[in-house]
Amino acid sequence: MTIKDIARLSGVSVSTVSRVLNNRPDVSEESRQRVRNVIENESYIPNNTARDLVKTKSDTIGLVVRGISNPFYTDVITAIEKKIEQAGYTMVMRQIASDADEIQCGAEMEREKRLLGIVFLGGCQDYTPERLRVLNVPFVCCSYSNKYGTLDSELYSSVSIEDQDEAYRAVDILIKNGHKRIAALVSSTYDGSISQLRYQGYLKALSDNGIERDAELVIETDGFSIADAYRAMENKLDNKDMDFTALFTIADVMAMGAMRALRERGKRVPEDCSVIAIDGIAVSEYIHPMLSTLCQPVEEMGQKSVDILLDMIEGRSGNRHVVLPTCFREGASIRKLN
Amino acid sequence: MTIKDIARLSGVSVSTVSRVLNNRPDVSEESRQRVRNVIENESYIPNNTARDLVKTKSDTIGLVVRGISNPFYTDVITAIEKKIEQAGYTMVMRQIASDADEIQCGAEMEREKRLLGIVFLGGCQDYTPERLRVLNVPFVCCSYSNKYGTLDSELYSSVSIEDQDEAYRAVDILIKNGHKRIAALVSSTYDGSISQLRYQGYLKALSDNGIERDAELVIETDGFSIADAYRAMENKLDNKDMDFTALFTIADVMAMGAMRALRERGKRVPEDCSVIAIDGIAVSEYIHPMLSTLCQPVEEMGQKSVDILLDMIEGRSGNRHVVLPTCFREGASIRKLN
Repeated sequence: MTIKDIARLSGVSVSTVSRVLNNRPDVSEESRQRVRNVIENESYIPNNTARDLVKTKSDTIGLVVRGISNPFYTDVITAIEKKIEQAGYTMVMRQIASDADEIQCGAEMEREKRLLGIVFLGGCQDYTPERLRVLNVPFVCCSYSNKYGTLDSELYSSVSIEDQDEAYRAVDILIKNGHKRIAALVSSTYDGSISQLRYQGYLKALSDNGIERDAELVIETDGFSIADAYRAMENKLDNKDMDFTALFTIADVMAMGAMRALRERGKRVPEDCSVIAIDGIAVSEYIHPMLSTLCQPVEEMGQKSVDILLDMIEGRSGNRHVVLPTCFREGASIRKLN
Repeated sequence: MTIKDIARLSGVSVSTVSRVLNNRPDVSEESRQRVRNVIENESYIPNNTARDLVKTKSDTIGLVVRGISNPFYTDVITAIEKKIEQAGYTMVMRQIASDADEIQCGAEMEREKRLLGIVFLGGCQDYTPERLRVLNVPFVCCSYSNKYGTLDSELYSSVSIEDQDEAYRAVDILIKNGHKRIAALVSSTYDGSISQLRYQGYLKALSDNGIERDAELVIETDGFSIADAYRAMENKLDNKDMDFTALFTIADVMAMGAMRALRERGKRVPEDCSVIAIDGIAVSEYIHPMLSTLCQPVEEMGQKSVDILLDMIEGRSGNRHVVLPTCFREGASIRKLN
């Protein structure tokens, strides 16, 4: 129902309806009552809401989640949602596949939902100024940065861990435990995502420790799901004798998928293969053996992203980049080699 | 900025602004241009959006998720979000703790976000007409019904499994495998939630098979999380010798928590204790031993809930109740007793 409809139904002019909606005094009591009756009967929105409506912008912040059903995201989303609601804004979320285009999705949402700003949860690291031109509102990259892109750092915000350094740290833990034949289970070695970054950290840790890279030990899953990891590891073990004593995976769920494949091929973790990952999701603390992993500060990551976005929306500051540390959770999936 | 502000800045009357916003012909070109300039300079919302704004209602559907970080919900939420977006509506989600009041949350959202309807994902089963009076829009209970309530079935919609029957089926599988000493790990036996319903199914399966109920075998966790289940089972095993050969749990994550406690106390699954659950989340298929569980049709559950809600919002039909079947996933967590 439009203002015109209300005017027609209540038998007054559009301007009178406007005056009633805006609580202006220059309306006769009779007209005011008529308009109110129509609004009530047609369950039209109440006065103050109607006035909110004609404000410049909506109160909506978009959340684009790339890589649905990644349990790591669940708690980040909860933190983001809580923070946005507490600040008096409305969160509208869209979840897209891990190979979909988050910027395109964000641009569509910006247009359709009149967003004030966007949080991207998961995305690529190779943004160009051209590609980002479709966005006209501030945005924050949550859980990733833009390491491979050419976008000026002042043109976007990010909250992330230092992916390459953290992967380095994980692989270094394996090396310190005596491992030299270390496999890497990644989504892709060259996709401009955190997968590539963490793979680079793996390579650097090997190289800094004088271990030669062996292409045979790099397993690409082409996906981030538990099933993708399971199939890739299954395939690896079926096609060749296992010639590694440890496995670095870029995500907890991928470790869980790989561990099932190892188990089904008679390989024990950690006796035959040590495993370390990055994420720290709840379930990986309950499996056997408990997964050793670098835990991301999920709640802080979500909260900080919203803080930065609101600072921009409310004009308190410009783009910022925050790097958060992980925390090593020592499980039982790493064996010390003698 | 309100219509009044635009009128003031462009030096025309409020009614003229209204006419411009509503694309009416009866406005001089000069006035139209003035209003448009102000709107543009103040980055006021564009015409067509402005006209959308004065429609009766928003395009927003609320999703209230009760029991955050339950992995079972992740895929349901994805299905709900996709379906709502496809139909051209906007989903606004709020996540609340499993002991929070979903109706209160829904009522607040309805007011603040001018909702057209609500999907409740997870909630209590004891609604009364009085309690639901705060809601003025259609709503669908997703993944639960209202078995303990007094609300007329024509006053709400639901999409759920037959919780009591499915729990019965799960326990019956244990009994058919020769188990008689069957423990139940539930959130509560009397909380008006699916926990109580599934506990009733457990009791009925025992009774129909001539097995006497033993209060000692009922473990209440007072929560639905993996950690709650772990602690409750830990506590149980620490305080008494294990006198059961099988465990029925009301959720996959709770089974995972219990399995860790069993393992840490030297009890093997399924050799010392068979385990069956209800849910069918992805990760429980990858743990060792693979969890035997009744899988809920998560995607269909989410889609159906939105279908029903949209039918009501768009006036095609009234409240409906849909019951979906589960599907038994045979893992390796059940041992046949001789």
